[in-house]
Amino acid sequence: MGDFNQSVILEAIRRSVEGLSRIELVEATGLSAQTVTNITRRLLDDGVIAEAGRTINGPGKPRVTLRLVAESRVAVGVHLDPAVITVVLLDIAGTVLRRRAVRPDDRDPRAVIGMMAGAIDELIAEAGIDRARVAGIGVAAPGPLDAERGTVIDPPKLDGWNRVPLRAVLAEATGLPVAVEKDTTAAAVGETWTGSGAVDDSFLFVYLGTGIGTSLVREGDAVRGSSHNFGEVGHIMVDPDGPPCACGSRGCVEVVCTPQAIVERAERRGILDGDRRASDMHAVEERFTQLSERAEAGEAPAVEVIEQAAHALAVLISVLTDVLDVDRVVLGGPFWDRVSGIYLREIPGELRRRSATREVHEIPVSGTVIGDDVGAVGAACVVLDLALTPRASDLYLER
Amino acid sequence: MGDFNQSVILEAIRRSVEGLSRIELVEATGLSAQTVTNITRRLLDDGVIAEAGRTINGPGKPRVTLRLVAESRVAVGVHLDPAVITVVLLDIAGTVLRRRAVRPDDRDPRAVIGMMAGAIDELIAEAGIDRARVAGIGVAAPGPLDAERGTVIDPPKLDGWNRVPLRAVLAEATGLPVAVEKDTTAAAVGETWTGSGAVDDSFLFVYLGTGIGTSLVREGDAVRGSSHNFGEVGHIMVDPDGPPCACGSRGCVEVVCTPQAIVERAERRGILDGDRRASDMHAVEERFTQLSERAEAGEAPAVEVIEQAAHALAVLISVLTDVLDVDRVVLGGPFWDRVSGIYLREIPGELRRRSATREVHEIPVSGTVIGDDVGAVGAACVVLDLALTPRASDLYLER
Repeated sequence: MGDFNQSVILEAIRRSVEGLSRIELVEATGLSAQTVTNITRRLLDDGVIAEAGRTINGPGKPRVTLRLVAESRVAVGVHLDPAVITVVLLDIAGTVLRRRAVRPDDRDPRAVIGMMAGAIDELIAEAGIDRARVAGIGVAAPGPLDAERGTVIDPPKLDGWNRVPLRAVLAEATGLPVAVEKDTTAAAVGETWTGSGAVDDSFLFVYLGTGIGTSLVREGDAVRGSSHNFGEVGHIMVDPDGPPCACGSRGCVEVVCTPQAIVERAERRGILDGDRRASDMHAVEERFTQLSERAEAGEAPAVEVIEQAAHALAVLISVLTDVLDVDRVVLGGPFWDRVSGIYLREIPGELRRRSATREVHEIPVSGTVIGDDVGAVGAACVVLDLALTPRASDLYLER
Repeated sequence: MGDFNQSVILEAIRRSVEGLSRIELVEATGLSAQTVTNITRRLLDDGVIAEAGRTINGPGKPRVTLRLVAESRVAVGVHLDPAVITVVLLDIAGTVLRRRAVRPDDRDPRAVIGMMAGAIDELIAEAGIDRARVAGIGVAAPGPLDAERGTVIDPPKLDGWNRVPLRAVLAEATGLPVAVEKDTTAAAVGETWTGSGAVDDSFLFVYLGTGIGTSLVREGDAVRGSSHNFGEVGHIMVDPDGPPCACGSRGCVEVVCTPQAIVERAERRGILDGDRRASDMHAVEERFTQLSERAEAGEAPAVEVIEQAAHALAVLISVLTDVLDVDRVVLGGPFWDRVSGIYLREIPGELRRRSATREVHEIPVSGTVIGDDVGAVGAACVVLDLALTPRASDLYLER
């Protein structure tokens, strides 16, 4: 139980703003004074925590406050999105030390991974951090994944990525341990780690990226599923009158709720001109930004398109909350910020109307606390999780 | 940890066919010899286990085999289905001692609960069992439920059941502790308890009752959700060309996959005559039986209707396996047996074609090991779980 107790202590110290004394740790964790003393001694020796000061509180020995040494370990987080690759450097307090976004022109997976490795090396060098203090690299990638091999299988939006051994290639290129996680799961881990809600609550994370994905945190832990592919929702029908989908059905999330689908709807209605190469992700992103800005400014046809997208997403969310029975819903991902105003106005009421458990409990809806970088930050948190807690499997770390 | 260790030991003994010796228990559980000795002594004193024989295996003391005293505790399981109420009496080995099915004519909830209590009392008396040995009554009821209060809220198919305090009324009527669980969750617990798969595997249970529901077992434990209402799937769209649904959408599970929806489709096509009171559940059941018998006999139009229902259910199952990422799928419930032939022929291929993780792993589909009584048997297993293991909350037991 040693590792588990250590993680409990680190978690308590990490979550306290001012640090905690050993006696406070005993109270907070329920561990024995002896266990707390032994573990904190080890952590002090390793430089992961430090003595932050003494408080005198009545008679007896003064209490020594222990705090996390935030910079004692760092983790790299990478978000591999079809449109943009985001790299962040996080310390163990969860603070983003550095950040960089790169837009690869070359679509070849090896070239993209090379670019990723270059950006990581530069970021570590610029921050002046000893590589020995880098716990590892977490990569948030679109599913499905072969988690055991660290392989990206064939994500619908990543052209040319077919069974790419991302983990092995990036580990080879950087000489650092690499963990590959689904983008949506990474985002949920990030949301938990940076700690918006209660430690043990359950929430659905709805991820708005180039594709739409979801993840689940149950009693504080991300649920990964049998093959680490939890949360594929692209072919859930949300609009029986929607456009046809490659799966043979109609009105799936994939062809209704994604940025590309929303842009296409606006193009069909003449709100955006139709002069765009269908597969150009950068053009989709630009147009999505333009459309959401016009909607934010109150331009009625643009508002209507975004509202319809919000209602379709509410159908998806109600399907998932009916199945999963969670306490709350969090929305985030790289495209979230641009539509958050209208989505947060439209979705909660629609969800309440549809919920099978509306007579039992409310399901609050909110935006992520992390922002657009939730995928990259979350990927770094996956590494911190692996490094600091015994909770997750170390199955997919490789040096 | 005492209770937990006790449950581990009981589980090991329960799952062994021939019983286990103390030394075998030490090997199987990883507990210390002293702990095994202490706990088995207590269980012997309580009459829950007994010495079953001695084996001499080389030099040294002969080994005493310990086995469960199956009849030392019994549990009552009740399945409240809109069409039929099934009551079973289970011993702790999971064997059904007695079974009774009653079809209430009176729809009034109090009258139905009174009938339930009468059937329970008769079953216990007929079996000649001392009421002190009855661990409790488990009731499997359609959701949504208010689990904290043991209240049935307003299930779509149970007319007149609106915030009925089922647990309190039945506990009052019988003088026994009562646990109320969602029918689908109870079925999954029953499937786990009677042990078809590995102890720690993850499966989706698809429940074919008057309504369609689902439940999830993850690493051997039923997932109940934040408010014990996991698995509501009635308004997941499975056929964009399906009939309109009360929810405002089209082609939901509720209007496509339920026995009533299937019977209505056959009526619309003239395969069954349309002369039926819409709300008559018994008539729906009779007609569903007739239709499935004609399909089993190879009558083409009937086969086609059942095949279409199977394909629609495969859409639902693929939605859920894409989201939940499980090892396998189990189908069961009171209407399962009648369509199992065609469903098991049609669903696996369709699921493979649709699965987002088809490149990562296969998802086997099979029928329940328990049979039509899976709801009632599962409800009794919920009580055995509560009585024998500390895993589940005792939140919803009330005497």
